[in-house]
Amino acid sequence: MVLNDTIIALATPSGAGAIAVIRVSGPDAISLVNSFFNSIKDGKELTEQKSHTIHLGHIVEDKRTIDQVLVSIFKGPNSYTGENIVEISCHGSTYIQQEIIQLFLRNGCRMAEAGEFTLRAFLNGKIDLSQAEAVADLIASDNAASHQVAMQQMRGGFSNEIKLLREELLNFASLIELELDFAEEDVEFADRTQFENLLNRIQTVLKRLIDSFAVGNVIKNGIPVAIVGAPNVGKSTLLNALLNEERAIVSDIAGTTRDTIEDELVIQGIGFRFIDTAGIRETEDVVESIGIKKTFEKIVQAQVVIYLFDASHYAENSKLITVEIEKIKNQFPQKPLIIIANKVDTTDASLIKSELHYEHLLLLSAKEKTGIDELKNTLLQFINTGQLRNNETIVTNGRHYDALLKALEEIEKVQLGLNDGLSGDLLAIDIRQALYYFGEITGEVTSDDLLGNIFANFCIGK
Amino acid sequence: MVLNDTIIALATPSGAGAIAVIRVSGPDAISLVNSFFNSIKDGKELTEQKSHTIHLGHIVEDKRTIDQVLVSIFKGPNSYTGENIVEISCHGSTYIQQEIIQLFLRNGCRMAEAGEFTLRAFLNGKIDLSQAEAVADLIASDNAASHQVAMQQMRGGFSNEIKLLREELLNFASLIELELDFAEEDVEFADRTQFENLLNRIQTVLKRLIDSFAVGNVIKNGIPVAIVGAPNVGKSTLLNALLNEERAIVSDIAGTTRDTIEDELVIQGIGFRFIDTAGIRETEDVVESIGIKKTFEKIVQAQVVIYLFDASHYAENSKLITVEIEKIKNQFPQKPLIIIANKVDTTDASLIKSELHYEHLLLLSAKEKTGIDELKNTLLQFINTGQLRNNETIVTNGRHYDALLKALEEIEKVQLGLNDGLSGDLLAIDIRQALYYFGEITGEVTSDDLLGNIFANFCIGK
Repeated sequence: MVLNDTIIALATPSGAGAIAVIRVSGPDAISLVNSFFNSIKDGKELTEQKSHTIHLGHIVEDKRTIDQVLVSIFKGPNSYTGENIVEISCHGSTYIQQEIIQLFLRNGCRMAEAGEFTLRAFLNGKIDLSQAEAVADLIASDNAASHQVAMQQMRGGFSNEIKLLREELLNFASLIELELDFAEEDVEFADRTQFENLLNRIQTVLKRLIDSFAVGNVIKNGIPVAIVGAPNVGKSTLLNALLNEERAIVSDIAGTTRDTIEDELVIQGIGFRFIDTAGIRETEDVVESIGIKKTFEKIVQAQVVIYLFDASHYAENSKLITVEIEKIKNQFPQKPLIIIANKVDTTDASLIKSELHYEHLLLLSAKEKTGIDELKNTLLQFINTGQLRNNETIVTNGRHYDALLKALEEIEKVQLGLNDGLSGDLLAIDIRQALYYFGEITGEVTSDDLLGNIFANFCIGK
Repeated sequence: MVLNDTIIALATPSGAGAIAVIRVSGPDAISLVNSFFNSIKDGKELTEQKSHTIHLGHIVEDKRTIDQVLVSIFKGPNSYTGENIVEISCHGSTYIQQEIIQLFLRNGCRMAEAGEFTLRAFLNGKIDLSQAEAVADLIASDNAASHQVAMQQMRGGFSNEIKLLREELLNFASLIELELDFAEEDVEFADRTQFENLLNRIQTVLKRLIDSFAVGNVIKNGIPVAIVGAPNVGKSTLLNALLNEERAIVSDIAGTTRDTIEDELVIQGIGFRFIDTAGIRETEDVVESIGIKKTFEKIVQAQVVIYLFDASHYAENSKLITVEIEKIKNQFPQKPLIIIANKVDTTDASLIKSELHYEHLLLLSAKEKTGIDELKNTLLQFINTGQLRNNETIVTNGRHYDALLKALEEIEKVQLGLNDGLSGDLLAIDIRQALYYFGEITGEVTSDDLLGNIFANFCIGK
């Protein structure tokens, strides 16, 4: 894939603002913009200016001034894409943005495709593939945790580790393949003990990265929390009480279908998605029993379950409540369950305390906002944020996770083969396959299809 | 009003995009950003860099990297505000934008008020007041005509004319006031014939500018067109036919209440606002007669009236149609009226042609899109776009219009006084008053209240 035309796109969000930035990248970017740029200083030509400089002037077509603009010049390879880039900072009117973009589309530019600036950065060797993917994650990041993970990935933390292991493995692969050329002489260029050590190290790293995906996925997408409870036990009051003190995040990423999500909020930098359910009350009613089925489906997807009941009606419902809690515990023995007795401000909770003996039983009043901090702390303790705090590498990308799983499988085949004294030519096949999966992560191995899939998820202008 | 602290704001539209630009302006802008900026090149300090240069690095607080950014440096007075400016181009995540802005708010920056960057540009003598107002108009411009007028005003076309006249008048005022010092000697430093010539020239310019406001207002806000017609005559089909070929503009400027507006569209660069009405059919019904009253109110506000009827039901309604048309003509004899017989594709229109003799009678089919171009041309011919095409100065701002009216009033007082042989000291008072109103336009005369009003209409970040 070689891209050598000049592309243009709006880089700032659409809509009206004080300013907008239009990005032009490609071999002709500077000379093209120069043809329609009248500098405030007479006779100044953009083509003669240094990289990383800014110039004030007007975008003019024939004698019609479209706007007064600031033009920033970046000369390849010292630019984001590695090509010549001009960024035109114009007034933020949608009309002006469109006039400028249309002007250049009529004069040799092509509209950039989604993510094409970053794709070019990758193709020109400015960043590797996992860094390119981190750019999209960074733009989508809406809380401290997802931001930190994306930033770390963009700075190469993750792919550097993979690259180093890949190089070492590649080195061994070459030695083993060299042995094949001397097959008749029965030499061993590759030290088998060293090789075994390397494979063990790789295995450890891969397992750690694969394990981190559970945390990474949760960080990227928010931790799903199912709230189970009958109507009127105070679900929305509870959510409001949580929201009141924390920043609510409303996601507007195109294409994400989240029909069941009630609210999304960030607690100490970690995103939580609260999923409302219809409850699990026993019923003869067909419609309601469908609701119960759906509740269980939602619990399956959730990472934490909150069972909420009204403390002021505990006495008359105590048996039902116990049955429901036990049902959840039996169906999902591994799933963290928080039992919340709400509205404790209106009643004496001593009966609840004496009858219900669960590890995570919280007595709170959503209305009076008592016990909310305890709930937050309980939620946080279920999340293994240790990795996050230690700046450890965390995998958040499903594509990377798949590649890592496949690489581990191949590495384990090699280990097995090595133990069984498999011949070098057979070992080499599995090693090559593992190398292939490593390369897929960083982009040393790519296909147009793969690139198309990755960059289609970007916004235009990036 | 002296502003010497350092302010910060997001300059690009809010929401997610590829990049966002955060603007920092004030004496400490460069050193402040420098404290949290780690250049990609070791040891590079922003404070030592040239104006109009761009630098790649990270925004870092303690050891936490918030983002990789490009930082643009502008050194006062060679900047938009005339102060030191740093523009931080970061990844377009709302989270990152907020983290960076919060970081600087905690460390010596203040959140910019609406329009404060442009206010500072004005206070520092970078632009005059009418140019500052043009910046807001430019950002709000949504069609070729409003864009052209705002651009001309921003480039000083309008205020330069006022400034030159003001200087000449100021010169005469000084001479006349000098005469007062020599009152006993009865000298005339100010040549009365020359002065009269100047006053006549000023009068002509002021009248021209005042007259241009009708066009200017229409260009800025769109030309209101009332559509009068019974239900089912094809109002919405007609609007769709017009819209189909032209770009529809949906205005989302905060604070504009436009409850009655149906559609806004641009024809040859001129904005039209089509106002649907309830029609004016005679009725006994109280509710309907309120509707008729409202229709007439909307016609009063409109600059053009379209009377629409269904050609296929003309025969049975011909008397009613004629009565309604005559009623509009009688009530609004000066208002341009277009009579449209719609649905001519379904019927023989010869009866209509023989009975209705109006200057602007159009036979069209909105459904088949015949006659639409003729309608567009008729609409355009009512608008005096001559001034626009000749690049003449056009006043679009209500505040300027008021000041020009008041200045004209004072100039005419001076002319009258001059004819009546009024003494210099009395002439001087009216001249000073005229000068005051001139100064209000360009900002040579201002008050904090006036500035507050003007800049409150800006968006934050400009």
